[in-house]
Amino acid sequence: MGFERLKRLILGDPLSNEMAVHEHLPKWKALAVLSSDALSSVAYATEEILIPLSLFAVTAVAWSLPIALAIAALLIIITISYRQTIDAYPGGGGAYTVAKENLGVKAGLVAAASLLIDYVLTVAVSIAAGVENIAAAFPALASHKEGIGLICILIVMLFNLRGVKESASVFAIPTYFFVLSIVTLIGVGSFKLMMGIHIPVAPVVHEVYPAIPVFLLLRAFSSGCSALTGIEAISNGIPLFKDPKQKNAKATMLWMGLILGSLFLGITLLCHLYGIIPSEGETAISLLSKEIFGKQAFYYVIQASTALILLLAANTSYADFPRLASLLAKDGFLPRQLAILGDRLVFSNGILGLSLASMILIVVFKGDTHLLIPLYAVGVFLSFTLSQTGMVIHHLRHRESHWIKSLVFNFLGAVTTFIVFMVIGMTKFMHGAWVVVLLIPCMVFFFFQIKKHYLHVATQLSGVSMPTQGDLEPLRHTAIVPISGLHPGVIKALRYAVSISDDVRACYVELNPEATQRLKAIWDQTLPQIPFIVLKSPYRSVISPLLDYIDDVEKITHDEVITVIIPEFVTSKWYHQFLHNQTALFLRAALRFRRGKVVTSVRYHLQ
Amino acid sequence: MGFERLKRLILGDPLSNEMAVHEHLPKWKALAVLSSDALSSVAYATEEILIPLSLFAVTAVAWSLPIALAIAALLIIITISYRQTIDAYPGGGGAYTVAKENLGVKAGLVAAASLLIDYVLTVAVSIAAGVENIAAAFPALASHKEGIGLICILIVMLFNLRGVKESASVFAIPTYFFVLSIVTLIGVGSFKLMMGIHIPVAPVVHEVYPAIPVFLLLRAFSSGCSALTGIEAISNGIPLFKDPKQKNAKATMLWMGLILGSLFLGITLLCHLYGIIPSEGETAISLLSKEIFGKQAFYYVIQASTALILLLAANTSYADFPRLASLLAKDGFLPRQLAILGDRLVFSNGILGLSLASMILIVVFKGDTHLLIPLYAVGVFLSFTLSQTGMVIHHLRHRESHWIKSLVFNFLGAVTTFIVFMVIGMTKFMHGAWVVVLLIPCMVFFFFQIKKHYLHVATQLSGVSMPTQGDLEPLRHTAIVPISGLHPGVIKALRYAVSISDDVRACYVELNPEATQRLKAIWDQTLPQIPFIVLKSPYRSVISPLLDYIDDVEKITHDEVITVIIPEFVTSKWYHQFLHNQTALFLRAALRFRRGKVVTSVRYHLQ
Repeated sequence: MGFERLKRLILGDPLSNEMAVHEHLPKWKALAVLSSDALSSVAYATEEILIPLSLFAVTAVAWSLPIALAIAALLIIITISYRQTIDAYPGGGGAYTVAKENLGVKAGLVAAASLLIDYVLTVAVSIAAGVENIAAAFPALASHKEGIGLICILIVMLFNLRGVKESASVFAIPTYFFVLSIVTLIGVGSFKLMMGIHIPVAPVVHEVYPAIPVFLLLRAFSSGCSALTGIEAISNGIPLFKDPKQKNAKATMLWMGLILGSLFLGITLLCHLYGIIPSEGETAISLLSKEIFGKQAFYYVIQASTALILLLAANTSYADFPRLASLLAKDGFLPRQLAILGDRLVFSNGILGLSLASMILIVVFKGDTHLLIPLYAVGVFLSFTLSQTGMVIHHLRHRESHWIKSLVFNFLGAVTTFIVFMVIGMTKFMHGAWVVVLLIPCMVFFFFQIKKHYLHVATQLSGVSMPTQGDLEPLRHTAIVPISGLHPGVIKALRYAVSISDDVRACYVELNPEATQRLKAIWDQTLPQIPFIVLKSPYRSVISPLLDYIDDVEKITHDEVITVIIPEFVTSKWYHQFLHNQTALFLRAALRFRRGKVVTSVRYHLQ
Repeated sequence: MGFERLKRLILGDPLSNEMAVHEHLPKWKALAVLSSDALSSVAYATEEILIPLSLFAVTAVAWSLPIALAIAALLIIITISYRQTIDAYPGGGGAYTVAKENLGVKAGLVAAASLLIDYVLTVAVSIAAGVENIAAAFPALASHKEGIGLICILIVMLFNLRGVKESASVFAIPTYFFVLSIVTLIGVGSFKLMMGIHIPVAPVVHEVYPAIPVFLLLRAFSSGCSALTGIEAISNGIPLFKDPKQKNAKATMLWMGLILGSLFLGITLLCHLYGIIPSEGETAISLLSKEIFGKQAFYYVIQASTALILLLAANTSYADFPRLASLLAKDGFLPRQLAILGDRLVFSNGILGLSLASMILIVVFKGDTHLLIPLYAVGVFLSFTLSQTGMVIHHLRHRESHWIKSLVFNFLGAVTTFIVFMVIGMTKFMHGAWVVVLLIPCMVFFFFQIKKHYLHVATQLSGVSMPTQGDLEPLRHTAIVPISGLHPGVIKALRYAVSISDDVRACYVELNPEATQRLKAIWDQTLPQIPFIVLKSPYRSVISPLLDYIDDVEKITHDEVITVIIPEFVTSKWYHQFLHNQTALFLRAALRFRRGKVVTSVRYHLQ
């Protein structure tokens, strides 16, 4: 079939279960897939710190350095904490799993809800930010941001539907390209300072920090914490790694923390020394690289790699969202379809769901990142806190080797992430974080409603004893064949009807008495053994007289089942179908909620 | 059912066939329904003449009077011609019918295509123009023009779905309100001139007409001809009238011509005498009534009635489009569904189609009339020409009483409308009329393709002889029941299967070998008489292994029919359905084009 071939062309041939092992990733690819989100924050985190400070006073930007150090310290704590989680949960210790097992189902669902929200936001925000970077380079595209964003999501979606390994291969290059170009930027920038080619604007030591309100410091800190979103991806994604999975994941986690920390600190320090203050419409990275390289070729390389990594940050969510959704679905908190592995060994429905949700966000917010960013990061730190607290309980319960050391790290992680969560929640509440605070309990309620439905169905289906022979006694049933005339399609349906039932009735809805007389005459001559029933239709409807007749038959025969057999045309071209009445469709819909009715179409294929 | 009750609340109870006679309209109501389009042009036709002239030179507006007289003469010719058509085609002599019978099918279809296009344009343009008038009065609404336009279309649509009589009652009032307010405007304006309260700007007689290019005159003339769109509505709508239909329609046609002609000439003359030159953003009617009444209450009455009649002009298309579409559908040139009378005795599908098409135009052109107006009127005059030419042939063939007089009128009509068609086509071609010129042959091609399909189907269905006894021999068939476990839903499906076939096979798609073993053990114990078939699924798909098995069975048994019986859950709330796999749906779609397969769902109702 055409559709099947097109699907294979785009998504590749199906992969069998045995192929699953080949879909596992070496460390360097896993790093690229799972940390593009975290690493991409190097592109904007410094700026997020500088903007609130510079709005207060130009001298206040001096505080950026201690704030960046505090965030780097936080990064170390979280990285170490998550390495403990990898040890304890080799099957993939997402916040949902850890919180559910140690703090109870509700805590797990709260963590899951906040992560799902954050994954959707990550896709929408990072795609929108990437498109903004592109539009800054090509102003002609500025009026098509929304459309370009949607196309980008579609492309990322298609690569992910093709499978994990293929998306990793495609997405590894831009990630390392970005890392390399930022390393070059920092290297050349430092070299110029050391050689005295560039005289630093600000002295490094003996800094005078001007007095500024604590709230402002906290805001700058919480904005900078956007650097830490996405670092949980590796501990969630252990199943993606090649064996030995745990060891590889731990090593990758360490590398990611080191790269992220040093790039972030390096950029912040250089911005400070070069006296960069981001302005409306130009990013800190852009200003810094212009300062160091001038508007030369390498400036454009940096801009391009930044735009690319922002677009790809979305990819980390594509690795995590479908897996988390499948875990929830297996536990009955989300529709079961989300737990089915597609024919390319990925959770296709989750990928489609994530794409749809983030596309809606792009359309609703018209591709504008400013409205989405405040919603961001609250959820991440809530899930960090729950996951770390869960780990504390885990250590207290299981007391595995070195448990005291691990307990200390996770306790430290829980306390610090909780503090950050409160800070972010407070400083960003009015700017949009309240949406997330409201949404999380709604989603948890929704999860429980779904679970309730599945439990309810399971009870109904299991409450009956084993089938007995009596359950399979053939039942007496009447077959009703609605007809519109006497043609091969009708005859085919009648033949099927007499094959499955002893009581077949042909029903003709009269719209024109003369036509009825003509048809009746032919019928009596050729098919006298099948009763020909004429139904009046004062309101010209075909469906209602049939429904009334079916009710009448049921009352008289007391049949357990009445089968309605509809002769249906199948046209050779699908669009020709619109030229024929859709009686079968309407009748099926009308009978859907009535018990004891089976609707069968006997199709007659037109050439 | 909830939906059915809601529908009755909005659209009213169904009307039986016997009610049809009560849905016929007295003359005064028919005039309102069928001429709101034509009469509404009084609101803008004068302006359409003045604008091209005034852009050339202020003195050139003096030409508006002779141009208006020419258009009025054309109006007289067309009115008389159409009265001949009413005589000749008492069943409703639309351009389609007249052209088809006298000039052949192709000419008829060209006329039909141009009329359909024009009806859709009329709805879009008149609604957009009405909304623009409203937005001029309430500038706060200006940014919501598109949305308001869509809502207006929905309202007009709902009244039309309720039925002809109800929409006539609602729409008669604003039509007469408009006529009355324009008559008052002309009366008071003339009175002030005669009493010398107002001194005319331009002398009435012995006018000096400045020399201007002929092309400009033609453009002003063709713009002014927009006054004539919609006047064919009465001769198309004869079936709507009360008996004696023909006599009533002819009288109404005459009245409509008189009212339209005198209002149009009156407004143009007054504009001339009061020296009105429409400016960007203010209409001629608005300027004239401000001049005569000042910005008093009556000025606002005129503005309100103008906005209302423009909105209602759409209603004439709602009377004509569905009827023309139903005629085409009866002849097999459009989908048959368009020929079905809905339960309120109107062609509901045509009404929905017209609404949808005009809504798309409103959205695509963002409610801007300027882009749509040049597309307008070309189609009307093409259909006028075809219809009048058809009448000429009709008279030559039939030679009924007074045929020579009628022939002269229709010949005059054909020639003049053809000239106007050429003038409009040439002067507006580059401004958008080319779209219509391209669209008409495309639509005619499309009509023929639809006809071809219906003819093709009819040949296939009629090519077979009468059914014989052998056609109803019961056929041997295998029933395949895909199962996912052993629960009451499956048992119900199995019971139905054994009732309709002697060869029932239960198929289980294996996703997990352990689960298969457990199920097989229970099966062998309780249902040994039904074969339990295990299908492997290396790619985790449920559908493909089933399709393969169905093919295998077909090859071995050579059955004419294989019935696939799917146990399906019906949840008590429709939205719960999304929580269950849609296997039935996918299987039905996959088997749709395969011959000899019947797919039946046996539904198990969950509480």
